[in-house]
Amino acid sequence: MISVQRLDAADAQLMLAGARACATEIGVPMCIAITDEGGNLVAFERMDGGKVTSITIAIDKSFTASGAKRATHDYGAASQPGAPAYGIASAIGGRLMVVGGGLPVMVDGACVGGIGVSSGTADQDMQVARAGVDAFLASL
Amino acid sequence: MISVQRLDAADAQLMLAGARACATEIGVPMCIAITDEGGNLVAFERMDGGKVTSITIAIDKSFTASGAKRATHDYGAASQPGAPAYGIASAIGGRLMVVGGGLPVMVDGACVGGIGVSSGTADQDMQVARAGVDAFLASL
Amino acid sequence: MISVQRLDAADAQLMLAGARACATEIGVPMCIAITDEGGNLVAFERMDGGKVTSITIAIDKSFTASGAKRATHDYGAASQPGAPAYGIASAIGGRLMVVGGGLPVMVDGACVGGIGVSSGTADQDMQVARAGVDAFLASL
Amino acid sequence: MISVQRLDAADAQLMLAGARACATEIGVPMCIAITDEGGNLVAFERMDGGKVTSITIAIDKSFTASGAKRATHDYGAASQPGAPAYGIASAIGGRLMVVGGGLPVMVDGACVGGIGVSSGTADQDMQVARAGVDAFLASL
Repeated sequence: MISVQRLDAADAQLMLAGARACATEIGVPMCIAITDEGGNLVAFERMDGGKVTSITIAIDKSFTASGAKRATHDYGAASQPGAPAYGIASAIGGRLMVVGGGLPVMVDGACVGGIGVSSGTADQDMQVARAGVDAFLASL
Repeated sequence: MISVQRLDAADAQLMLAGARACATEIGVPMCIAITDEGGNLVAFERMDGGKVTSITIAIDKSFTASGAKRATHDYGAASQPGAPAYGIASAIGGRLMVVGGGLPVMVDGACVGGIGVSSGTADQDMQVARAGVDAFLASL
Repeated sequence: MISVQRLDAADAQLMLAGARACATEIGVPMCIAITDEGGNLVAFERMDGGKVTSITIAIDKSFTASGAKRATHDYGAASQPGAPAYGIASAIGGRLMVVGGGLPVMVDGACVGGIGVSSGTADQDMQVARAGVDAFLASL
Repeated sequence: MISVQRLDAADAQLMLAGARACATEIGVPMCIAITDEGGNLVAFERMDGGKVTSITIAIDKSFTASGAKRATHDYGAASQPGAPAYGIASAIGGRLMVVGGGLPVMVDGACVGGIGVSSGTADQDMQVARAGVDAFLASL
């Protein structure tokens, strides 16, 4: 058997709080999703004003980042026309997200989960996701 | 135009806290989902030990209860063989849940959202969902 | 964070071998799926003569058993007309399997994965799934 | 009626072994899927460390290659903006894969199945898929 470490419910609350604080600071209400290292949802919050379409997008960004152990914006670069991963955006029923805002949570070189943020620009989503990850890493 | 009242993010946190406390008391880690009156997810939490399969089930119970303004267990009774709603369980790609654990949140006769709980028996799920609704109603 | 143990690729091969041997012995070519404790596929084999329809069924039985930490035949009993989980069979887009042949793999009280078998009768599927689990447990 | 030749379970094991050996050699744990000429899954393996998101992607690359009798990277070229197959990547609910790593298995001009590999770069996936096909062809 393999032993793995993954985010627990308390970790997810830390991440939601960190992301929420950043979203409030920049004035963009967000949808924020936290998944474990198997890509399964642990926690989700839609801030007042967060977009309805962003519910699924945030969950799928987190799924992609934790399942692929890779930031979603990396897929954005790799999937441009002519690039090797062109067309990957519609994989897994469209769940594979290539837009920024999904980050894996890496601890000691292993992926323990992910976060996905949506409702702002890709840059804003990435900034808020980063704040969520940082809040968790600061607690270790 | 119509003015509607719906659960906000703070209400959802109250409901999660009430449901979580009840789940802890009965010793069953749960997946808990809160949706607004449009059936759209506001908040979700998988407690440590909550079932992976219950992620979608909790969300869909809440979707059903808020979207249909009706407890999911009412559909359970109405969808038995020979009953008028027989077969409804597979509607909406299987999202329409007829198992107990989904409750609408009614205020002054209007549905303002819903809660869905999964991971225990149907009775346990219903009890925890009830605790979530009560926590919100007590705050009004 | 939580530390969890899960089936690895070598464990999955042991389970496939055990299940395959049993299927050969009873003369029923099977589809056999192994998932980890997050419900994600680790290994799959369709024996020559296994049913095409059973590919998804075997995978979903294993997903259900590992994700819900429960044998699929237990859901069969609990979801009969009039029973509390009636209607659960169409949950998660129909992935929630209530037909026998899906078993969780429990080690020291924790679910580390699952197996799903399909192509025979429910009893045959359960027997072959049991053989797969036993082959793994005997290796510990 | 038509007589067709297709990969059997033993062929699939040869292909998995060939692909696994190559993946180990280049140091990239992969998801590897083998389908028959009908596009139906025969065998699958997620090596320890293979990506969760790559489970479906590997299966769909193999489905695409065997079902269309064409390498998935050929679709990548044909589906660039302005090219005739532009937009094909989202066909079949996103199952039609245009990223490299899916190869048909051709014998005497006929497609007898396919292989799909995912978790590395497109080039690595293609290399490992090639090794899987070669292992089978060498056995003829």
